[in-house]
Amino acid sequence: MTRGPRERMVYSAAQLIRTQGVSGTGMREVVEHASAPRGSLQHYFPGGKDQLVREALAWSGEFAAGRVRRYAAAAPTPAGLFAGMVAQWRDQFRDEGFAAGCPFVATTADVVAGNEKLRQAVCAGFETWLRPVEESLREMGVPEARCRSLAMVMISALEGAIVMARAQEDVAPLDAVVAELGPVLDAARE
Amino acid sequence: MTRGPRERMVYSAAQLIRTQGVSGTGMREVVEHASAPRGSLQHYFPGGKDQLVREALAWSGEFAAGRVRRYAAAAPTPAGLFAGMVAQWRDQFRDEGFAAGCPFVATTADVVAGNEKLRQAVCAGFETWLRPVEESLREMGVPEARCRSLAMVMISALEGAIVMARAQEDVAPLDAVVAELGPVLDAARE
Repeated sequence: MTRGPRERMVYSAAQLIRTQGVSGTGMREVVEHASAPRGSLQHYFPGGKDQLVREALAWSGEFAAGRVRRYAAAAPTPAGLFAGMVAQWRDQFRDEGFAAGCPFVATTADVVAGNEKLRQAVCAGFETWLRPVEESLREMGVPEARCRSLAMVMISALEGAIVMARAQEDVAPLDAVVAELGPVLDAARE
Repeated sequence: MTRGPRERMVYSAAQLIRTQGVSGTGMREVVEHASAPRGSLQHYFPGGKDQLVREALAWSGEFAAGRVRRYAAAAPTPAGLFAGMVAQWRDQFRDEGFAAGCPFVATTADVVAGNEKLRQAVCAGFETWLRPVEESLREMGVPEARCRSLAMVMISALEGAIVMARAQEDVAPLDAVVAELGPVLDAARE
């Protein structure tokens, strides 16, 4: 672990938000989780909790986008990409349990209605994730007019299935979206 | 408004959770929102916040299930039912803005990982909502083997699109899931 305290705090904030939401995550808890020195929060994040959450969301968007590019390269069909995106969550739930969900969903759920800057940060995070999905679909032969629409369907279905899987403690919703949407996505190619 | 303080508090809890999450919603705020007398919370909900949240989730599940039955009767095709379910949210966002989302998503996001009873309550709420969707699909001619799977896809896609729409302050994700999934749902009939 060669990451510095700043990077560790951004990562820890993302992980804690995924499990407890933004309102449920205290700043002191982030510092402890990151094994960062006291006082480092004010030093690195003069904008306070909002700045830390914004950076955690940006980090999460880049992480998700990187995964999309990796899955698209490994299985270059629309159904293959979607199966990869869903399998990431299926594997996580199997290996680590159902405690952690998506930080974009968590932030939307408890603070977006009352915090315009965090709303914009979630919106930007979704955009960072949507873009490589759209681009991959285009490269795979999906008509221009449906690339954004299908990217939204893929991420919406995955996000909803993650929530339902956590509530049920069962990966059945993830399996359902892959089984039902895979053929539809492949059929969208010209 | 002839509802008593007990019913009003359950309703108010659901509405506040939809906007702020469970961690972000205080008990005193629920009493104020419901215009309920002080002390009525302990009187009606001796189990405290958890009991109130559980009842708000059960109420929400019944509300969603009632809507499903209404939409299925009004437009008795799989695509028609799904369009009705999504239009409910589209209309709400248009008329009331993007402040409020789904209480099941909100509760999953911030407390499910650490509260087994609330996890079970969200799980039961989803089940109350899934059941009439499954039954409607069956009555509409969808093969038995795909009814639950497609019901999960419909609710997952709707839930994810609600989150994305709130973050973007744009109903485009709702329009995308209806446009892309409607034909797929109708084609599932035998």
